[in-house]
Amino acid sequence: MVQKAYKIATIPGDGVGYEVIEQGVAVLEEAVKNSNVSLEFTFFPWGSDYYIDNGMMMPKDALEILKGFDAIYLGAIGDPRVPDHVSLGMLLEIRKGFDQYINLRPIELLEGIDSPIKLAPGAVIDMVVVRENTEGEYSSVGGRFKKGTPDEVALQTGVFSRKGTERVIRYAFDLARKRAAAGNGEKAPMVTNCTKSNALNYSMVLWDEVYDCVAAEYKEVARDKALVDALCMWMVRKPQYFDVIVASNLFGDIITDLGAAIQGGMGVAAGGNINPEKVYPSMFEPIHGSAPKYKGKYVSNPVATILAGAMMLDFLGAVDEGKAVLDAVKSVLKEKKVRTYDLGGNSSTKDVGRAIIEAIGNNQ
Amino acid sequence: MVQKAYKIATIPGDGVGYEVIEQGVAVLEEAVKNSNVSLEFTFFPWGSDYYIDNGMMMPKDALEILKGFDAIYLGAIGDPRVPDHVSLGMLLEIRKGFDQYINLRPIELLEGIDSPIKLAPGAVIDMVVVRENTEGEYSSVGGRFKKGTPDEVALQTGVFSRKGTERVIRYAFDLARKRAAAGNGEKAPMVTNCTKSNALNYSMVLWDEVYDCVAAEYKEVARDKALVDALCMWMVRKPQYFDVIVASNLFGDIITDLGAAIQGGMGVAAGGNINPEKVYPSMFEPIHGSAPKYKGKYVSNPVATILAGAMMLDFLGAVDEGKAVLDAVKSVLKEKKVRTYDLGGNSSTKDVGRAIIEAIGNNQ
Ligand SMILES: CC(C)[C@H](C(=O)O)[C@@H](O)C(=O)O
Ligand SMILES: CC(C)[C@H](C(=O)O)[C@@H](O)C(=O)O
Repeated sequence: MVQKAYKIATIPGDGVGYEVIEQGVAVLEEAVKNSNVSLEFTFFPWGSDYYIDNGMMMPKDALEILKGFDAIYLGAIGDPRVPDHVSLGMLLEIRKGFDQYINLRPIELLEGIDSPIKLAPGAVIDMVVVRENTEGEYSSVGGRFKKGTPDEVALQTGVFSRKGTERVIRYAFDLARKRAAAGNGEKAPMVTNCTKSNALNYSMVLWDEVYDCVAAEYKEVARDKALVDALCMWMVRKPQYFDVIVASNLFGDIITDLGAAIQGGMGVAAGGNINPEKVYPSMFEPIHGSAPKYKGKYVSNPVATILAGAMMLDFLGAVDEGKAVLDAVKSVLKEKKVRTYDLGGNSSTKDVGRAIIEAIGNNQ
Repeated sequence: MVQKAYKIATIPGDGVGYEVIEQGVAVLEEAVKNSNVSLEFTFFPWGSDYYIDNGMMMPKDALEILKGFDAIYLGAIGDPRVPDHVSLGMLLEIRKGFDQYINLRPIELLEGIDSPIKLAPGAVIDMVVVRENTEGEYSSVGGRFKKGTPDEVALQTGVFSRKGTERVIRYAFDLARKRAAAGNGEKAPMVTNCTKSNALNYSMVLWDEVYDCVAAEYKEVARDKALVDALCMWMVRKPQYFDVIVASNLFGDIITDLGAAIQGGMGVAAGGNINPEKVYPSMFEPIHGSAPKYKGKYVSNPVATILAGAMMLDFLGAVDEGKAVLDAVKSVLKEKKVRTYDLGGNSSTKDVGRAIIEAIGNNQ
């Protein structure tokens, strides 16, 4: 039996990051225990504390250091002592620096979770948002003219490359194809183009053109198009309609938070920042923030982090182990016995981690 | 009794626009019948048919013509025969040309309407989104470099002026104050700043700075801040939390469609494009599209258009008449007898108009 060993850079980060990552690591260790996969976690104490001490969120050579790892497992970033654009800049630096051009966010309503949406009987919510993660509206290009004066004008330029647009759309179509092949749901494969080309006359017009080009190569995948405003409406009115949605950086950000709400909240929403070619390490994280006021209380839901860990295993090639984690999470949620406050329970972060670890054992 | 006479430019537009405007006009005429207000409607057959015949959506001197009116009452724009950015460009031209810098969108869940959101018992949804309507992301500034080549880069620049930002934020604070004074709900006045300054490092940083400046002048109005992504989540999870939300052009577009979903759908969501100084005419419209496939079927819900008409009367100064329309709409919705398919009924567009006209009579 060939041994597969993966080196994971673990960045707990700020706020409740440490608490949730702790459970994530424990669960992943359990999942690989009797398998041919081994995980070696190396912790990096980067984030806002580090910033207070060193004036930067990570050391200058952070990307150099991280490059030696197979993946990055991130808790959460953000702290009242540090301006948001500084602390969260760290996230964006890793995403861009490692060309993690796919931000993958599955939106699935798991059994045992209550959606805030009234669903039609039998409606199954199982979609994935493929968000562009390295360019577009988040390019940080722009400036402020006559800053601070009454005549000030601020410019913020979204930069959309054809290459960057094409690769994310292509990824979405490949994913739709893969999901259909895996018999994921009864839905025929479809990629919804999240756009706003009626108002954003350069960026989104290019985006639509590229979508059409790529779509033409995937005859068996249905095309679909929705303006981002209407899409938000439809996600609320008929979430079961969607399969794969492809969106720009900003639009993807918005619709995935909405999606998280629909799937039961931030406590269960995970994301992967992926460099599909594996030239650089990919990064997996819960999509929630650092919730500073809950730090040290051990009440935060570790499920999102644990699901991010399952995505990481799957991405690394430890597919069975990833599935074992996912199945364990599903069985614990379905049982409705052990759950944190956000899901209406009163279990602690550790209780939930422990229950999932136990379920991994039971499911084997 | 002084007679107040208002001249209304009516643009039914495309698709179902004619059908809904027809009811809107009939209802408004009824509302002013025995009052000192008179309305003179002048119809303009502009839109996509006009485009097919003349190569433009409106005549070249359209704004010159419209300038002579007190307000514009618009049905809907959009037609499969005309590219979206052309047809809808007409809307944007009027909004910008008449400096209608406020897009006002009340989001209220009226009695008798079912929200797709599960609401806490007793939760009252009653918020207003104040959307910037003339600049920002919709500035149409940008271009395409090496268009059509693999190296193409498209740039889309949001242009945010301090002046433009300040006036919309100030309007929002004034509105919160006014709503509180009118005893609108039991909520204390609050203006939520919809932002994304953690990622949009020029435009939204300016936006936040201006928000803080303006907020400092309104001591009795609570400040509140939410990133647009988180805001979408909270609108679903706790819509009763919000009072006034102030948002940029694009963000306002997105959150008001989401808001429309929450308040029961596009059939009941109205908007005003307002030039508060009344230097130019303001424009009132349902926020739904032209729904070309329903054209001529008379099944579309005219309520949104009628509510837009009520906003128009109120804005013009015919406050009692506007309120009469609103009350009539409320009583018809509450009764649940006459309603179009989108609200689960099978009444026609005309039935609904007729019921509201009758209710105006009954309520007098
Ligand atoms: C923290 C912030 C910059 C980030 C984003 O907008 O991408 C977050 O909201 C996310 O979705 O991962
Ligand atoms: C038609 C479109 C350009 C418009 C907008 O985005 O402003 C519409 O969605 C709206 O909200 O009025």
